[in-house]
Amino acid sequence: MIVVMRSGASPEDVEAVMTRIRELGYRPHRSDGEERTVVGVLGNDRRVDPGELTWMPGVEKVVPILAPYKLASRDFQPAPTVIDLAGLQIGGSDVVLIAGPCSVETRAQMFEVAEDLQALGVRLLRGGAFKPRTSPYSFQGLGEEGLRILAEVRDEFGMAIVTEVMGPDEVDLVGSYADVLQVGARNMQNYRLLEAVGRQQRPVLLKRSPSATLEELLLAAEYILAQGNPHVMLCERGIRSYDPLVRNTFDLNAVPLLKQLTHLPVIADPSHGTGRRDIVGPMARAAVAAGADGLIVEVHAHPEAALSDGAQSLRPADLEALLPALEHAALAAGRHLAPVAAATR
Amino acid sequence: MIVVMRSGASPEDVEAVMTRIRELGYRPHRSDGEERTVVGVLGNDRRVDPGELTWMPGVEKVVPILAPYKLASRDFQPAPTVIDLAGLQIGGSDVVLIAGPCSVETRAQMFEVAEDLQALGVRLLRGGAFKPRTSPYSFQGLGEEGLRILAEVRDEFGMAIVTEVMGPDEVDLVGSYADVLQVGARNMQNYRLLEAVGRQQRPVLLKRSPSATLEELLLAAEYILAQGNPHVMLCERGIRSYDPLVRNTFDLNAVPLLKQLTHLPVIADPSHGTGRRDIVGPMARAAVAAGADGLIVEVHAHPEAALSDGAQSLRPADLEALLPALEHAALAAGRHLAPVAAATR
Amino acid sequence: MIVVMRSGASPEDVEAVMTRIRELGYRPHRSDGEERTVVGVLGNDRRVDPGELTWMPGVEKVVPILAPYKLASRDFQPAPTVIDLAGLQIGGSDVVLIAGPCSVETRAQMFEVAEDLQALGVRLLRGGAFKPRTSPYSFQGLGEEGLRILAEVRDEFGMAIVTEVMGPDEVDLVGSYADVLQVGARNMQNYRLLEAVGRQQRPVLLKRSPSATLEELLLAAEYILAQGNPHVMLCERGIRSYDPLVRNTFDLNAVPLLKQLTHLPVIADPSHGTGRRDIVGPMARAAVAAGADGLIVEVHAHPEAALSDGAQSLRPADLEALLPALEHAALAAGRHLAPVAAATR
Amino acid sequence: MIVVMRSGASPEDVEAVMTRIRELGYRPHRSDGEERTVVGVLGNDRRVDPGELTWMPGVEKVVPILAPYKLASRDFQPAPTVIDLAGLQIGGSDVVLIAGPCSVETRAQMFEVAEDLQALGVRLLRGGAFKPRTSPYSFQGLGEEGLRILAEVRDEFGMAIVTEVMGPDEVDLVGSYADVLQVGARNMQNYRLLEAVGRQQRPVLLKRSPSATLEELLLAAEYILAQGNPHVMLCERGIRSYDPLVRNTFDLNAVPLLKQLTHLPVIADPSHGTGRRDIVGPMARAAVAAGADGLIVEVHAHPEAALSDGAQSLRPADLEALLPALEHAALAAGRHLAPVAAATR
Repeated sequence: MIVVMRSGASPEDVEAVMTRIRELGYRPHRSDGEERTVVGVLGNDRRVDPGELTWMPGVEKVVPILAPYKLASRDFQPAPTVIDLAGLQIGGSDVVLIAGPCSVETRAQMFEVAEDLQALGVRLLRGGAFKPRTSPYSFQGLGEEGLRILAEVRDEFGMAIVTEVMGPDEVDLVGSYADVLQVGARNMQNYRLLEAVGRQQRPVLLKRSPSATLEELLLAAEYILAQGNPHVMLCERGIRSYDPLVRNTFDLNAVPLLKQLTHLPVIADPSHGTGRRDIVGPMARAAVAAGADGLIVEVHAHPEAALSDGAQSLRPADLEALLPALEHAALAAGRHLAPVAAATR
Repeated sequence: MIVVMRSGASPEDVEAVMTRIRELGYRPHRSDGEERTVVGVLGNDRRVDPGELTWMPGVEKVVPILAPYKLASRDFQPAPTVIDLAGLQIGGSDVVLIAGPCSVETRAQMFEVAEDLQALGVRLLRGGAFKPRTSPYSFQGLGEEGLRILAEVRDEFGMAIVTEVMGPDEVDLVGSYADVLQVGARNMQNYRLLEAVGRQQRPVLLKRSPSATLEELLLAAEYILAQGNPHVMLCERGIRSYDPLVRNTFDLNAVPLLKQLTHLPVIADPSHGTGRRDIVGPMARAAVAAGADGLIVEVHAHPEAALSDGAQSLRPADLEALLPALEHAALAAGRHLAPVAAATR
Repeated sequence: MIVVMRSGASPEDVEAVMTRIRELGYRPHRSDGEERTVVGVLGNDRRVDPGELTWMPGVEKVVPILAPYKLASRDFQPAPTVIDLAGLQIGGSDVVLIAGPCSVETRAQMFEVAEDLQALGVRLLRGGAFKPRTSPYSFQGLGEEGLRILAEVRDEFGMAIVTEVMGPDEVDLVGSYADVLQVGARNMQNYRLLEAVGRQQRPVLLKRSPSATLEELLLAAEYILAQGNPHVMLCERGIRSYDPLVRNTFDLNAVPLLKQLTHLPVIADPSHGTGRRDIVGPMARAAVAAGADGLIVEVHAHPEAALSDGAQSLRPADLEALLPALEHAALAAGRHLAPVAAATR
Repeated sequence: MIVVMRSGASPEDVEAVMTRIRELGYRPHRSDGEERTVVGVLGNDRRVDPGELTWMPGVEKVVPILAPYKLASRDFQPAPTVIDLAGLQIGGSDVVLIAGPCSVETRAQMFEVAEDLQALGVRLLRGGAFKPRTSPYSFQGLGEEGLRILAEVRDEFGMAIVTEVMGPDEVDLVGSYADVLQVGARNMQNYRLLEAVGRQQRPVLLKRSPSATLEELLLAAEYILAQGNPHVMLCERGIRSYDPLVRNTFDLNAVPLLKQLTHLPVIADPSHGTGRRDIVGPMARAAVAAGADGLIVEVHAHPEAALSDGAQSLRPADLEALLPALEHAALAAGRHLAPVAAATR
């Protein structure tokens, strides 16, 4: 951390800052430029809040040097975290595919789509039983009944189940049915929930809030990691921006940046990321070409009858048509697409 | 809701949309322009999700006409909601002041600041016992011990207590000590928490998420109202924007807009809204002049020693110096500042 | 400027950075922390582009310490710049009012509104003869005929004229009729235009682009100042944000921040800043309470017939009704409103 | 266009809106819902400004139905615009590559990089002679001397030259040397410049402003098209967002969206789009996979010595290493990369 003094700061101001740094347990390092004096804080283990120095007389600004997350950083763990699931390695050499409907609606719906997806080589099934909805008047999911349907599908098709958990006291329940616990974008900084999923060992798919910086996303992951669960996947699913043409602005820059900053696997969600079915395909290709470790895509056998997110869901045939393009995109990133790879090995 | 067809939509496409609208229980109303056909959806009680029609062949876009919230709207309740607290009417004719430190740190700290604030006429005290912090390594609050200190302060000084609740299973605990339950910005769409605070009767201070539209904020309030708790105050506390000079962009446009859209009281938080103590004063004046029903301001007797948010905290003397200006600002909005009004009646 | 090295940077990497700094004519200052080495650049007169060091092996990031503008900064000139116009001091103790229609439409329209405004004590008249419009099919202004009308109004009513200039080769023409040359938000980084208005001596009203940081706004002002014209006023007129309820997000934080950073007068435009007549009044009050040196407000005698921006224009009677509130807001900022002050002296 | 009346609008309010629509030369179409009356505007040829109706009593909002641009739209011209240049078809089946340094610095520098690029099959060379720089103290380009160097390179290597023009009175000069006139992001709404490049026939590369909606970008293109120049290429180069890790947020959603909305070729600029050399490669792959018609990439033989934008420039060897991945990405979009395609035909 570096403390930049104002141009008019007095020698006493600089001295006070240096004293305060020593009181906090660190070593100050002073450097006098022509227009500004700057004081470095040495020995900081990320626990100094910049606010503790910003208030002081003569201080212009405080600039952090170290990222505030540690367990999630590449500095801490250079080798990628790989998560084994349904015979796949998420974060490994192949690009994985998670697919399924937004919501679990009926047993028949899930069996139909699971059969279609299995035929395409998909082994990771998404589907929401507890649904966070912006409006209290929208369909809120089937709840535990939905979880039971998901578990049946897993038993029948051998797929791993990814489903959302919305509150800390639902973690045990959802974890008893699901293989991956999804923390939704709206809950990215719901710390009670992060702590709860961190205290168990199911892998967690942590979605980026639409206004989170990557540092905030990594700090949210850090909450989970710090509780002892190392199996965290990060998911880019669109940020808030100003163009009314899209529900969200799918931020693919996050993919290569996160791959540099962290060892955790990075999944991209072009369905929520764009909110428009007509560009899900191109953006799915782009996400894989950018280096994502996996895609999570909404697929519904009958989007026109979906109880939620029909506007952004692909049909199974759409996904099938997309697979060869995704394999090309994976090759662009020096990888293979898991379903295609499996079919050809 | 209005469905806009593409320029090349066929008569069958239009017919299919009209049939689907009838199936959903509404009446379609067709209008043929020179370049586009448009179909209105009549009888919609806000329960049609635009996504149910967007997917259909020939549809270009679906435009909502009604706001999706109801209980929170001025159409539903034209008269303002007024919340009585510590002898004050929040949402009434006077502008109220909520002040206090970011975090409860010690009993001595709270008694010192409460005494100072009481002397200034402040009757609503803020202070966090459970602290949501971006980093897991930052100070997380004293927990129930903090709540006990707050209750002591209330008994001693007769102030009403505003404090944050972070999870649904803490609502009873926090409610047993506090007068107002604050739902923080990060939890604005934590639906389990919104439902829990909606199921009890303590007033709720609901903070706007830094990327929430006003419609999303009002839908979050709707979650609480729909559970039966009508005592909701909305709080603007800064939105995410692009200028690195400020932690947040305090969005004062929200104040007059919310006053038009909803009957709920609107509180402004210039401390979090800006993140910089040096502009808290001007922005507090601006918020009151814009028509806010109240301010929530961070005040700490010793900001330089605060365990959190020292950079944005005023000293009691700063607040005292600001009061006459705030009374002028209240007059600009045709109101009075409660502490000043009380002193002069 | 400070160069932060990566955690794995080699001694050679650090040495190369220090050598490069010396080659650029500055002195390197090295500081070895536990996790990172940091190298300060001493003697930098703002002419080192961070990009010149970012590329180097082992460099993690480059952090600027000094603001890149100089002539516009408070460090350079602590005393406020005051611009004399029509007997008013812009940037002085009183808050000035600039009012008038978006576009000059007819001689009769301008005389009618000027008479109304003069009666309210307004001495600075705005009106566009050259209109930058997002669509090529919108009304583009009367051109030189509009300028002639403005000059007639000045002669008749003794008001100073503020009008926009769109291209470098129109500067002489517009300057021969107008008292203040406005550079519109879309042209904030039109450097040929900035240079041209900098090479003459009429005061310039420089509007902030809707996505400009304050640093970029001040650098745009620096272009004008560097050419020799010291009479620059800055104008906040709304930034781009994500809420569809407003055309722009009027960013009042800019007002107190700019007053700290620069000696140039700061004008606020609540008409363009919000795009909605129904909140122009509250936001005008807020802008004055926040410390703006002046307001620029769209006023049209018949907004319903305006050729542009009718949706955000006040009627003269609306402005009249607003004046007492604006005087209260000015008092909140320790000032007076010029028209009110003049009437009472 | 559709006019939504407030819930409390009177029959007279509705009648007045219908009368005004007739006065403007259109036909009103009324539809009475249960909570709102809605009036459609039929026969609108895009020349009604929503503002002309928004002001009226009882009006809640005005919703446009048609896009305001016409010549740029796919509705107007379904077939793609293809621009022939140096034997390449921009907007045709192959993905083209434009490469070169940010600025022309010396004759030797340009000859060196041109030779390297030619060896990679690149036929379109970028390089700035007039440089718009945020700071007036940064290197501003060589001016006409730079243009002469570019023309020499063209004569020597047979490459087509892409270079920026900053003001309307430089259009003839730059056009006498260059093959493509670039309008930079800061000038996207510099209407005098758009008109000037529209009045000549050199192809124009129009860069998206960092806060422009796609509609605004297409309206800027419309300004050029409306003057008679049909050879416009659009360029996505990053939007302003909130994450400090990147200079810009490269918005790839723009690529498939623009391909739907317009017949004009779409070029992507991952260098400015991200501002970070370390993610230019992944984002270039992503842009091609998303369906861009071309890439414009900064390449400098010695980025460490570049006078501008060294931080985002690739070396020729970096580009060479990227080509096979870009060909895979092009295959993902059903196309080929022009340099690779040429080498194998």
